[in-house]
Amino acid sequence: MRLAIVFGGESFEHEISIVSAIALKKVIFCELIYIFCDKNRDFYLINADKINSKRFSSGEYLNDAKLTLKQGGFYLKRLFKDDKVKFDAAINIIHGADGEDGKIAALFDFFGIAYIGPGIEASVVSYNKFFTKLYAKSLGIKTLDYEVVSKDKREVSLPLPVIIKPLRLGSSIGVSVVKEQNELEYALDVAFEFDDEALVEPFVENVAEYNIAGCKIDGVMRYSIIEEPQKELFLDFNKKYLDFSRTAKIYEARLTELRNEEIRKNFKLIYEPLFEGAVIRCDFFVIRNRVYLNEINPNPGSLANYLFEEFSAIVQDLAHSLPNRKKIAVEYKYINSIQSAKGKA
Amino acid sequence: MRLAIVFGGESFEHEISIVSAIALKKVIFCELIYIFCDKNRDFYLINADKINSKRFSSGEYLNDAKLTLKQGGFYLKRLFKDDKVKFDAAINIIHGADGEDGKIAALFDFFGIAYIGPGIEASVVSYNKFFTKLYAKSLGIKTLDYEVVSKDKREVSLPLPVIIKPLRLGSSIGVSVVKEQNELEYALDVAFEFDDEALVEPFVENVAEYNIAGCKIDGVMRYSIIEEPQKELFLDFNKKYLDFSRTAKIYEARLTELRNEEIRKNFKLIYEPLFEGAVIRCDFFVIRNRVYLNEINPNPGSLANYLFEEFSAIVQDLAHSLPNRKKIAVEYKYINSIQSAKGKA
Repeated sequence: MRLAIVFGGESFEHEISIVSAIALKKVIFCELIYIFCDKNRDFYLINADKINSKRFSSGEYLNDAKLTLKQGGFYLKRLFKDDKVKFDAAINIIHGADGEDGKIAALFDFFGIAYIGPGIEASVVSYNKFFTKLYAKSLGIKTLDYEVVSKDKREVSLPLPVIIKPLRLGSSIGVSVVKEQNELEYALDVAFEFDDEALVEPFVENVAEYNIAGCKIDGVMRYSIIEEPQKELFLDFNKKYLDFSRTAKIYEARLTELRNEEIRKNFKLIYEPLFEGAVIRCDFFVIRNRVYLNEINPNPGSLANYLFEEFSAIVQDLAHSLPNRKKIAVEYKYINSIQSAKGKA
Repeated sequence: MRLAIVFGGESFEHEISIVSAIALKKVIFCELIYIFCDKNRDFYLINADKINSKRFSSGEYLNDAKLTLKQGGFYLKRLFKDDKVKFDAAINIIHGADGEDGKIAALFDFFGIAYIGPGIEASVVSYNKFFTKLYAKSLGIKTLDYEVVSKDKREVSLPLPVIIKPLRLGSSIGVSVVKEQNELEYALDVAFEFDDEALVEPFVENVAEYNIAGCKIDGVMRYSIIEEPQKELFLDFNKKYLDFSRTAKIYEARLTELRNEEIRKNFKLIYEPLFEGAVIRCDFFVIRNRVYLNEINPNPGSLANYLFEEFSAIVQDLAHSLPNRKKIAVEYKYINSIQSAKGKA
């Protein structure tokens, strides 16, 4: 099996995508090829042996082969007939914009490329934190209270302390905890650097957080272990950045089997059928003995490989079990019948 | 001003998109160029003088110039350097899949093409009727009761009569009214021809329906008149098909100014800020003196030109007032700092 890892993108999380992509090399044991989407959204085929983060920051990758995205896949330019880059499935590991906002999903759907990653709908529902709230609520899954503020409407009515997040972003970029009134304006300014809207939620000190990842293969849910991540006040970007290179296995959270089951049940509700084809990670809080959804990560850092016992096998099995895209037949039935009626056929 | 009308697509509504596109020629008075997306998702530049529906059904368009979608726009293949097709903005008039499900929006966003049409989020929220329900509810806008059924879970619990619609489709394709229990299974089969999920709503006989279109230009909402569409039991596909070629002006519904205001207020709530950049049409019901959202059409048939007094001017003004896409700067700050820390820089 040959998988194409697609990474980079015009995204605030461009760099952590590079780190994620490199981490995958250590944990997926089949042939891997690397396709880099640079900040100008040009695609390059990167030799897996030569991959390291400096290749991208230095611009050295510009010497690699440039690819064209066309119907059917990525192509290498040749004088007479372009060569298609062959792989069984792509893995979308672009974090944040481009990768998690639906753009790459749409490109792959449009150009007929099989991929591991969230589809367009799944991307929009998880990338926009307001839509995540609506979706969770529709499933009967608890989330923290919230309000959406915008550059034009900055009033926060939730009582302090609150946590403020750009509405559409991951990786803790632009996130602030506001404990005192005089910190509020600055925190909003920071969030609005990244998006015109922001999500405000109550900040719960020392909240118990549990992360679980999973996917559906041949109709069966496959769950990772449940981790209780170690954290500071909250994970800041530098901390998370290093997190994206994680490949070392972690220890399972000490939870009752009942609680584990409850977390898996919530994960399954969220996953099915919206996220089919993707390996996602959901972060839950447990507050006063109740489970709350905090976030859905449809392209988690290094694909949350460290949470799985058999990550390499799972990714390859998933690549064989991707959702079928139905081809829509266009037959010009109506235009032909109208032409006939007009006596023009 | 030069506008590029992009139409066709791999969609059950491919043919009505052709009809819509041709209709626009009569109502937009500036230079128009036509870009056809055929059923294989190849793009062709169509001479506006030669455009007629038969050109597409007969395959004659295959003699027109093929275009390549690349960073910055559509290109004509040339021996040495490809020629960019020049226009001020595209108009996405692909109906249904590809055009209204977020794919074209994502392509245009990714390749940096300015366009009139719904963005990715707006597409997903309006294309999936379940998400439309969640969105309307979040805004405090009433909708009919509903349930979502699927191929695997066909049980309908709403009392008859009901109307059954494929969850992701427009133009009344696959829609049935079920008045008797023995019609139910067939109606579900019909809907599931088009999508794995379907929306079930109570069917309200003789419901008063009002359509309004609009867009936001330079921060100001511009509304069309409000039409009460004439209808049979409900608009079937053949009827709607002809509807997509509509260019004749219609008469305003006879409503009190208070009701008009209420409908415009609901439209604005739905439109802002999600649909900025698009001309959308919303269809409302009035039941027992209350306004309900029925549907959001983010690429309405022939762009609902017939509802506007000054359609040509509005489209051109909108093309000058499209939402800005912020460029995300990638600076390799983190990778460089990590390289430095490692002594590798």
